[in-house]
Amino acid sequence: MVVGQASRLPVCHHSWQAGRLPHPFLPLPMNRYEQFQAFRAEMNEKILARGTTTTKRFFNLDTKAYEAGALDAKTKELLGLSASMVLRCDDCIAYHVDQAISAGATDDELSETFDIALIVGGSIVIPHLRRAVEFVEQCRAAGASD
Amino acid sequence: MVVGQASRLPVCHHSWQAGRLPHPFLPLPMNRYEQFQAFRAEMNEKILARGTTTTKRFFNLDTKAYEAGALDAKTKELLGLSASMVLRCDDCIAYHVDQAISAGATDDELSETFDIALIVGGSIVIPHLRRAVEFVEQCRAAGASD
Amino acid sequence: MVVGQASRLPVCHHSWQAGRLPHPFLPLPMNRYEQFQAFRAEMNEKILARGTTTTKRFFNLDTKAYEAGALDAKTKELLGLSASMVLRCDDCIAYHVDQAISAGATDDELSETFDIALIVGGSIVIPHLRRAVEFVEQCRAAGASD
Amino acid sequence: MVVGQASRLPVCHHSWQAGRLPHPFLPLPMNRYEQFQAFRAEMNEKILARGTTTTKRFFNLDTKAYEAGALDAKTKELLGLSASMVLRCDDCIAYHVDQAISAGATDDELSETFDIALIVGGSIVIPHLRRAVEFVEQCRAAGASD
Amino acid sequence: MVVGQASRLPVCHHSWQAGRLPHPFLPLPMNRYEQFQAFRAEMNEKILARGTTTTKRFFNLDTKAYEAGALDAKTKELLGLSASMVLRCDDCIAYHVDQAISAGATDDELSETFDIALIVGGSIVIPHLRRAVEFVEQCRAAGASD
Amino acid sequence: MVVGQASRLPVCHHSWQAGRLPHPFLPLPMNRYEQFQAFRAEMNEKILARGTTTTKRFFNLDTKAYEAGALDAKTKELLGLSASMVLRCDDCIAYHVDQAISAGATDDELSETFDIALIVGGSIVIPHLRRAVEFVEQCRAAGASD
Repeated sequence: MVVGQASRLPVCHHSWQAGRLPHPFLPLPMNRYEQFQAFRAEMNEKILARGTTTTKRFFNLDTKAYEAGALDAKTKELLGLSASMVLRCDDCIAYHVDQAISAGATDDELSETFDIALIVGGSIVIPHLRRAVEFVEQCRAAGASD
Repeated sequence: MVVGQASRLPVCHHSWQAGRLPHPFLPLPMNRYEQFQAFRAEMNEKILARGTTTTKRFFNLDTKAYEAGALDAKTKELLGLSASMVLRCDDCIAYHVDQAISAGATDDELSETFDIALIVGGSIVIPHLRRAVEFVEQCRAAGASD
Repeated sequence: MVVGQASRLPVCHHSWQAGRLPHPFLPLPMNRYEQFQAFRAEMNEKILARGTTTTKRFFNLDTKAYEAGALDAKTKELLGLSASMVLRCDDCIAYHVDQAISAGATDDELSETFDIALIVGGSIVIPHLRRAVEFVEQCRAAGASD
Repeated sequence: MVVGQASRLPVCHHSWQAGRLPHPFLPLPMNRYEQFQAFRAEMNEKILARGTTTTKRFFNLDTKAYEAGALDAKTKELLGLSASMVLRCDDCIAYHVDQAISAGATDDELSETFDIALIVGGSIVIPHLRRAVEFVEQCRAAGASD
Repeated sequence: MVVGQASRLPVCHHSWQAGRLPHPFLPLPMNRYEQFQAFRAEMNEKILARGTTTTKRFFNLDTKAYEAGALDAKTKELLGLSASMVLRCDDCIAYHVDQAISAGATDDELSETFDIALIVGGSIVIPHLRRAVEFVEQCRAAGASD
Repeated sequence: MVVGQASRLPVCHHSWQAGRLPHPFLPLPMNRYEQFQAFRAEMNEKILARGTTTTKRFFNLDTKAYEAGALDAKTKELLGLSASMVLRCDDCIAYHVDQAISAGATDDELSETFDIALIVGGSIVIPHLRRAVEFVEQCRAAGASD
């Protein structure tokens, strides 16, 4: 089955995309976001296999919303990122950081997006900011240049 | 005292900026967002007059975060708008719609920002989307061209 | 254009469905939920007229999710109601109270749903509970029998 | 029926407690918080009249939690206030401002509580801060000295 | 002290209920929800041992709210589940999935409840949906038939 | 660079402040909150190194808001704690428990603060209450007397 998410390959987790994944609950050698990505891929497949038509349509719509239109793809990912940060969803933040970097976002653009989320959402955003910055590092280390 | 907010004049509520404001609780002839703007201006002044240094610094920081940098002002306002929509803060939405339009956002750009917020935040965003679309209308009617 | 919402006519606001609506901002003789319903109808039409394909698909999906399946329609509306109460969305609560009553929910079933939301969501749910109970009264007065 | 809330009379809305209340939906001469208080009293009575045992027990527990213990009553109301502000519940804020003032909170103590909520919760707290400051004014005008 | 939670034994974590629990921070051989259940049991005991009367009453009330009444127990657990999903509380989701399955909920009923939460709460619910589906699997594997 | 946070040393994690920290992702021998503290220190440094002026100012303001003023430091930490609990931010709860204990909060004062948060925020606070009580234990074990 083809779902929308499939076409949105991020740049910074090549290591787990080679079909040689250990089980996601074996913590090494995957770092936190590799675990997230592996778990995400495994469970999305299960969700869509058992889900209703409503579930599947929502997942497709979720992909469609970020396609370039009047706003370009990078801006849309940053919009998803600021929304995810103020809602304090680490997995959503990881996903949109990944996609934004794939779409060409620089470190300065990410930092300014983080600032908007920090000011709008307050100090409770800070723990999520820590994990976001950690993931930017892991993305860049995996080959996504600034 | 001069605070940062003062320099961010929006384009679409000229009618209440002429010093001839009735008390904000007299409902006519102001529409909903004119009331919001009038109440906002009145209370911000009181907050800053009685507030602590912390209060004043936060208000200044809130303004500073939206100044153009690596991201332009329009993009930053759209980031504030998507964050405000998923947090379901009508007054914040009104403010950022206003600022985004002042910074040149088109109706299509606003609609795509609304879509991101709708998908990220779900159907509970819809009541706020209704009021956001109403305000875009009121802004455009007040002279802010698409 | 036909959208899904159109087929979900609630039982308790006949008074404003007769094409003789005053403008929604004229506060009388509509009560609070009549205003909500009128504003909702007016703005949904505008949202769908100006919205993107994504917007329209989400609105349709929102309707589809509440259709009877393994769970009957009344239970699904109560699920939407408990979710709306803990998220503290008055308009959403109004909508689902309306739909649940249309689907045959009794006052006791509504009260027990309110209790779940109150315990899960805490005392911040109470202001919304007040408005929910007010609306149940207005629905029953408009002809929806317990 | 006697419920816990009944013993927590706030100091700043004498005007509507004299049995001469107009219907709460007649907007004058009550200001916003007088309307809130009147609506609160009316609906709490209805909620408790129709509510389940669970509903009534929760309402009693809600009162009991703010009684002086290891922490004094004023501190507990300020704790309820900071929690209500970051959750952005205007009615809850109004209630706890009222109770805190009754328990002797000064303007400076309220301002510092507002600051904690502002920093923790971010700029989305600001619209609620405006209404909180307005209500402090209305409380003080009604006779509650700083 | 006997508290209500004690009588709500779920069907799908027999393995840790035999008094032979290793310390909850030894990660193997417990899976994620076994860890959750063990930690929950250990800490609830401590909370109730050190808690105030208010704490204990709230815990009892929390149990009472889900007892069958006008709505049956399964429906109430699904109401708690949809509320927990839109509030994005993984432990609460785990608990209500467990209880719902114990009360006879089928996979289709769970999927339709997930859909309501997904549409109401948006894409930020998805990471929690992944963990919910994982837990349904673990429950079924532990002997709870569909 | 000196930032405000630096002067707020908590009493209960001496073990990781001795410059002999293993990498935070080596899970032993650190318990959960030692890991939190180590990760917090590491990432705050990175955030401030790469952050904008807005980021740095917000971090300083966050520290300043908790300094003694009309309210003493202990009360302010309890205000931050109740706000963090209803917003369900475990790291924020850990931080404010730590600071409150450093400022002299007793177990009874903490329990009553937890009760306010539990009543305001509802049963979804319970999983966070479990982790808060666990951390109080870890703090006391590390030498912070009641």
